[in-house]
Amino acid sequence: MMTTRIGIVGYGNLGRGVEHAVDQNDDIDLVAVFTRREPGSLETVHPDAEVRAMADVEDFVDRIDVMVLCGGSRDDLPEQGPQLACRFNTVDSYDNHAEIPAYFRSMDDAARPNGNLALISTGWDPGLFSLNRVMAEAILPDGATYSFWGKGVSQGHSAAVRRVDGVADAVQYTIPSPEAMAAARDGRRTGLTGAEMHKRECYVVLADGADPDRVRSDIVTMPNYFAPYETIVHFVTADELAANHVGLPHGGTVIRTGTASSGDVQRIEYRLDLESNPSFTAAVMVASARAVHRMATAGEVGARTLFDVAPGLLSAYSAEELRAEFL
Amino acid sequence: MMTTRIGIVGYGNLGRGVEHAVDQNDDIDLVAVFTRREPGSLETVHPDAEVRAMADVEDFVDRIDVMVLCGGSRDDLPEQGPQLACRFNTVDSYDNHAEIPAYFRSMDDAARPNGNLALISTGWDPGLFSLNRVMAEAILPDGATYSFWGKGVSQGHSAAVRRVDGVADAVQYTIPSPEAMAAARDGRRTGLTGAEMHKRECYVVLADGADPDRVRSDIVTMPNYFAPYETIVHFVTADELAANHVGLPHGGTVIRTGTASSGDVQRIEYRLDLESNPSFTAAVMVASARAVHRMATAGEVGARTLFDVAPGLLSAYSAEELRAEFL
Repeated sequence: MMTTRIGIVGYGNLGRGVEHAVDQNDDIDLVAVFTRREPGSLETVHPDAEVRAMADVEDFVDRIDVMVLCGGSRDDLPEQGPQLACRFNTVDSYDNHAEIPAYFRSMDDAARPNGNLALISTGWDPGLFSLNRVMAEAILPDGATYSFWGKGVSQGHSAAVRRVDGVADAVQYTIPSPEAMAAARDGRRTGLTGAEMHKRECYVVLADGADPDRVRSDIVTMPNYFAPYETIVHFVTADELAANHVGLPHGGTVIRTGTASSGDVQRIEYRLDLESNPSFTAAVMVASARAVHRMATAGEVGARTLFDVAPGLLSAYSAEELRAEFL
Repeated sequence: MMTTRIGIVGYGNLGRGVEHAVDQNDDIDLVAVFTRREPGSLETVHPDAEVRAMADVEDFVDRIDVMVLCGGSRDDLPEQGPQLACRFNTVDSYDNHAEIPAYFRSMDDAARPNGNLALISTGWDPGLFSLNRVMAEAILPDGATYSFWGKGVSQGHSAAVRRVDGVADAVQYTIPSPEAMAAARDGRRTGLTGAEMHKRECYVVLADGADPDRVRSDIVTMPNYFAPYETIVHFVTADELAANHVGLPHGGTVIRTGTASSGDVQRIEYRLDLESNPSFTAAVMVASARAVHRMATAGEVGARTLFDVAPGLLSAYSAEELRAEFL
């Protein structure tokens, strides 16, 4: 079994999740964590993990097979991604859907001339959900695909609520509509908008003296984030929020219902139930790093997505073992 | 878009399903159906489909990109598969799990020296279920995977019931246990045997004068097929069987529940609900034929399974379209 030596760039929930995931994969070794913070200030899962400043990455070109980029899609990856893809094979979870084609080109331009391989946008959405949308439509061309998210914490929506004047803290859950899921399973082709498919539930700690009615109104009328959705606002104490809403659970379901030209109705459904969203994304990134190492070793260069990765390459088992045990 | 010209070898439910599936894929053309029966006797979906004797396949070497092998795994594929893989790229749904490694070698030995590509054991199980087992374990190494089948018609078990003395006709349904599915979702690691995970329900038409108690006893005590399972036998008239049990619905669920080393419990679930089992397998084979044509055009030779196929190759969309629309 080939060992894959990885580095972690950026150490928030995702980087921590990658360090955890390495523990469960005997063929993956963590060489170092790279941070823009003071290296000595980082509390890693394993206290003896090597932590280095970002400026030191150059020293690791020959000691790391794949860099796992755990920065954010808005501020970190557009800059860090191409810089690192010039020096290393990379894996990231870039999730700004509208900008993926542009990000792909920038990573391809960085990786290809330097003989590196850059797998972008892996994780669960984009990632496993994307794979299931592609495969389900390839198999059932006449049908409709719907992606439901939740029940789970949307970090973007939680942050939007926290920006409302009079909010001290908040957590937002995205909740799929059972009626919309039933309609998707029944093969409904049109008429399911995002707002019909999901509702939003907010647990809000008010700032001292804030008017709950005004805060509620500011949240539920917020354009894009909440305005088209059924939104429920619960006011809780800081203690209640800390006791009951600390985790980052998430998940969702991709449903495609199609009709064969024989007239038979066929349905494919892929579901994730995750107690920790960042931990799962991290696990997908670690399996993806294994695949990238193998593909790069076979001579592949440039940018890729999970659509380009033969699934067997994600597994620590050999092709022979997979055929004998998993087919 | 590259057009893939296919031939269908063998024309039962599966071959008919492939002919249907071609209608839904603009980039797939059916060149001819090959049969060991009298070609003029075949009633194809499209009456103008070209039907030829098996002996004529040699004439089509330059006119067919991929042969889709729709024969049975027991009697047809072990002989036909290697013969055809010497002359054509092939796709098949070989499903004798225990013999897959040997079949793979025989197909590799036939295809590779002749410059052909042979994708074996595609469909849903083996096939999509296998993919999900591999990917779920790669992402959640610490966990347990369970495959549930049904509710659906098992053709092998139906045939076994029909061989019982005193049975005029029969259909057998495999039904997953809701309790076992709940245990799998809850993360149970051991203790779920096939018999605990499924029960079997038989609809049986008795032959004239047959003793129902003896027939029931012969069925429920049949080794391997029924003895370890909870088996329910219903006696029905031939008219009832014809009215209510003609289709071949099937499906199932692959569940993996794992624990991240952070302690978070994570679950991946893949589910199929199919009104027609052969129609769905056929649809997977047609998407697989597209992938084989692309891989063969890129120079790949030898035997492959779905583990070796980059999922984007199954889709009629280009890599650019997939990144822009599906990620």
